[in-house]
Amino acid sequence: MADACFIAGDWGTSHLRLFLCDGDGAILERADGAGAADAAGRFADLFDSLVAPWQQRRGPLPAVLCGMVGSSIGWIEAPYVPCPATPEQIAAACVALRDGAIRVIPGMSCRNRLDAPDVMRGEETQILGALNIDPALRRGRRLLCLPGTHTKWVAMQDGVIVDFLTALTGELFALLCDHSVLLPRQGEIDAAVDAAAFGQAVARFNEFPQAQCLHRLFECRARRLAGELTPQAATDYLSGLLIASDIGGALQLLPASGDGRSVHLIGDPLLTRRYAQGLAAQRYTTTALDGTAAALAGLAQVHRQLTQRRVANAVV
Amino acid sequence: MADACFIAGDWGTSHLRLFLCDGDGAILERADGAGAADAAGRFADLFDSLVAPWQQRRGPLPAVLCGMVGSSIGWIEAPYVPCPATPEQIAAACVALRDGAIRVIPGMSCRNRLDAPDVMRGEETQILGALNIDPALRRGRRLLCLPGTHTKWVAMQDGVIVDFLTALTGELFALLCDHSVLLPRQGEIDAAVDAAAFGQAVARFNEFPQAQCLHRLFECRARRLAGELTPQAATDYLSGLLIASDIGGALQLLPASGDGRSVHLIGDPLLTRRYAQGLAAQRYTTTALDGTAAALAGLAQVHRQLTQRRVANAVV
Repeated sequence: MADACFIAGDWGTSHLRLFLCDGDGAILERADGAGAADAAGRFADLFDSLVAPWQQRRGPLPAVLCGMVGSSIGWIEAPYVPCPATPEQIAAACVALRDGAIRVIPGMSCRNRLDAPDVMRGEETQILGALNIDPALRRGRRLLCLPGTHTKWVAMQDGVIVDFLTALTGELFALLCDHSVLLPRQGEIDAAVDAAAFGQAVARFNEFPQAQCLHRLFECRARRLAGELTPQAATDYLSGLLIASDIGGALQLLPASGDGRSVHLIGDPLLTRRYAQGLAAQRYTTTALDGTAAALAGLAQVHRQLTQRRVANAVV
Repeated sequence: MADACFIAGDWGTSHLRLFLCDGDGAILERADGAGAADAAGRFADLFDSLVAPWQQRRGPLPAVLCGMVGSSIGWIEAPYVPCPATPEQIAAACVALRDGAIRVIPGMSCRNRLDAPDVMRGEETQILGALNIDPALRRGRRLLCLPGTHTKWVAMQDGVIVDFLTALTGELFALLCDHSVLLPRQGEIDAAVDAAAFGQAVARFNEFPQAQCLHRLFECRARRLAGELTPQAATDYLSGLLIASDIGGALQLLPASGDGRSVHLIGDPLLTRRYAQGLAAQRYTTTALDGTAAALAGLAQVHRQLTQRRVANAVV
């Protein structure tokens, strides 16, 4: 049914991923473009040039977009939905472009457990998708973790997002890899992953849970000088220290899922595997869901909600 | 007495500071040059061109150098002196260049309280200088803090450096200022210091001492979005979070001075003032010593020790 097709878009800071989906949310085609940080002043042109081939064949198609496209540096600002809130509420709070042909999903905001304001944009759509993929997540107390540039730890109760906490883990890792004295210069190392070094860093971090990661980072250099760490292993050792610090700190502040020892991971599989390993070292069990699949399921769910509402309005 | 003059040099990663000193260590003249990171292959030329005017007027002058000039990327490698050790031991472990006309001070190494190897290079000379400026530091248990790119927390007992701990505080601050999403872009802010924002960040960090700084950093952005922090204040807020995390973590791991509530600061006055403010918020008292004065006093003390030994050897 051609007219049930829609465009699902994850337009983050550094990437735009557009999907032509059928009415069930299955991907028919994909197109990639510039992230919101590089799209200032030309969001409409970028979008139109990518979807033109699809619209030419299928006629006008509705679109649902999530991510930084709805931020103050985006195409149009979609104000944050404050917590506590259900992820379903984001559909009602979408901001319309072009008379509703394009809907931009808002982010969410909260006061986090450190009594600080906190925000997310894009992850709310992944969470909505995760609830649709695994309806059991709607029951009881759940701790979700969405690792990435800015890792989000999300406390849910009976399908409501109570609050969340942002960790700068991924951004800090990238900065320290690219600019710090901690790691060997590019060219001195190959990119092989050293899982043992990662695990060792996690174990060592957990030996001194009261330490701050500030006091562990220099180890990446000092252990190389002392011959205890190969240049190849230093990057994975750094990753282990940061992820262990993220996990250790978050578990101090947020309660785990109803059983008290499990966490639901949503994100890039390479990254959720590392968090799973870090959580296992603290004797937590995890489930993992691919971040792109979760985002798509969330975008499809928002599309369904908006379509049903439109139909309902038409009937009334 | 011209022949008692000597050259004292602090040759760090990014700067070379050379001082022509009289026999008492008082500065007669100063010259600045490229740091060790930019001096590969031309340490001798750089040094000679800077001291040539002094040598032309006064004849050959002995020199004592500390800092990265003695590292594996330096002029000549001066192996680390392992702790426990007295700062005075660095004189005996100096490495000679040009038949002893130039002495390069070694760094120090230890196994720190996190059971990790740790190293310093340059700070050992400042500590030696501090002990000479304030002999009371040689008595009992002392906790020293040398804030900087790599802040060093140093535990001393009766004049012996027992061990120390490195925090990446200054380097991380610079990286986050220059490259992260946390702060407004340059040009959107002026450089005015916001002491209130610094103090607020320290106070807030101390409210949740079990938190990791990873979970607080995003606040610098989220509080601006929420209108709680001006762009001007964000840099000082970040500084406060990092310094509070450094202080909080270090005090968990290292015992304070004999009275249990005091710390001796050595470093740049702007920085030691911030650490003093952070320590005061935890009800610690501090003394502060200028880092350049301490380095010079240390270089002068090494020069004296080496001269006395040379005289003693000549007498024997």
